[in-house]
Amino acid sequence: MFLGIVKGEIVSTINHPFYDGRRMLVCDRIDEHGKPSGGYIIAVAAVDAGVGQRVLILDEGNGARQVLANSSGPVRSVVVGIVDAVEVET
Amino acid sequence: MFLGIVKGEIVSTINHPFYDGRRMLVCDRIDEHGKPSGGYIIAVAAVDAGVGQRVLILDEGNGARQVLANSSGPVRSVVVGIVDAVEVET
Amino acid sequence: MFLGIVKGEIVSTINHPFYDGRRMLVCDRIDEHGKPSGGYIIAVAAVDAGVGQRVLILDEGNGARQVLANSSGPVRSVVVGIVDAVEVET
Amino acid sequence: MFLGIVKGEIVSTINHPFYDGRRMLVCDRIDEHGKPSGGYIIAVAAVDAGVGQRVLILDEGNGARQVLANSSGPVRSVVVGIVDAVEVET
Amino acid sequence: MFLGIVKGEIVSTINHPFYDGRRMLVCDRIDEHGKPSGGYIIAVAAVDAGVGQRVLILDEGNGARQVLANSSGPVRSVVVGIVDAVEVET
Repeated sequence: MFLGIVKGEIVSTINHPFYDGRRMLVCDRIDEHGKPSGGYIIAVAAVDAGVGQRVLILDEGNGARQVLANSSGPVRSVVVGIVDAVEVET
Repeated sequence: MFLGIVKGEIVSTINHPFYDGRRMLVCDRIDEHGKPSGGYIIAVAAVDAGVGQRVLILDEGNGARQVLANSSGPVRSVVVGIVDAVEVET
Repeated sequence: MFLGIVKGEIVSTINHPFYDGRRMLVCDRIDEHGKPSGGYIIAVAAVDAGVGQRVLILDEGNGARQVLANSSGPVRSVVVGIVDAVEVET
Repeated sequence: MFLGIVKGEIVSTINHPFYDGRRMLVCDRIDEHGKPSGGYIIAVAAVDAGVGQRVLILDEGNGARQVLANSSGPVRSVVVGIVDAVEVET
Repeated sequence: MFLGIVKGEIVSTINHPFYDGRRMLVCDRIDEHGKPSGGYIIAVAAVDAGVGQRVLILDEGNGARQVLANSSGPVRSVVVGIVDAVEVET
């Protein structure tokens, strides 16, 4: 798992029905200090995260499907938590 | 999941029967602003996407097989949606 | 699997219930000589590792769920061992 | 999935019995224009590809096992097709 | 799958019981010509490989568990073969 920051959402009208009504968040990857580390991911919101929030991202299909309660969904990446703090030694 | 732009297709006559009649799209990876981010992927079209369209790509085998309704197919990457807009803060 | 060094933990109050009571460790990736190799991972503690310890990290969902005795958990990365020594030829 | 070009084979006498009689191809990764993109992969031949041929490679365990008709094989990477042409806009 | 060269082992006393009695090899990644390509992996020895030997590495959980005859083991990376030769065109 890794950290991201929510930047926005994608809008898609032609897609697999699994995505109907689900928010697909654009999340930039960040390092443990909150700085962008390069790259992004499109992740389904399993918790209600908004733009600017730091989040915990799971990038694994079987767990993602379980979280979203859909055993056959075409999904790999989900936002599974909102991060309040990252406590690391400096 | 991540974003791509459809660049074309591959043609393959000698392959696993699973691929018969399926379009295998060449998709360049793009960032959230639509710019090529390096790299490409060959993804089966689960939605009918054409050259130049921005798409959502799932790169995970179990979900890909479910989308394509084939529990034993040799597949990992599928185009699962056409992206109308990427709404991100700038 | 690969090696990491525990740097701290993340604090998250809004998340999937699976994470309740579990420590989510921030681990920097290190090479076989103990030097940071770039990147980090957020891994659930399956053994009781503390800040500064070298650990063995498994980044795979099905095994992670088995270790944590939760067949449906949204998890991919776990700390599965504390490393006493890395014995390599130099 | 991605494209490769077959460069040769590996020879291994001490290995898991699954590999007995299977060709393990050394494939360089190539981009959509046929140029080496860096890196290689060792992939089991599920179609009969020879040195110099462009191939489609699947790098996913569950699909690879199904293609090779062995539900417990230690395999992740397979050559699943020979590529006749890559039709992309330039 | 990819190639590596065995550099040593890790020693870990506090870990998941799955690892008891198993050798965990430190393997540097090498290219098809035998040169280090950067990076390493910790892989469980499914064949009896020693320091300095070139090996074939599988980095996939479900296959790794089958090779090690443990359906619930926390493992993703295994050494599945000793490589006698890599025959590539030059």
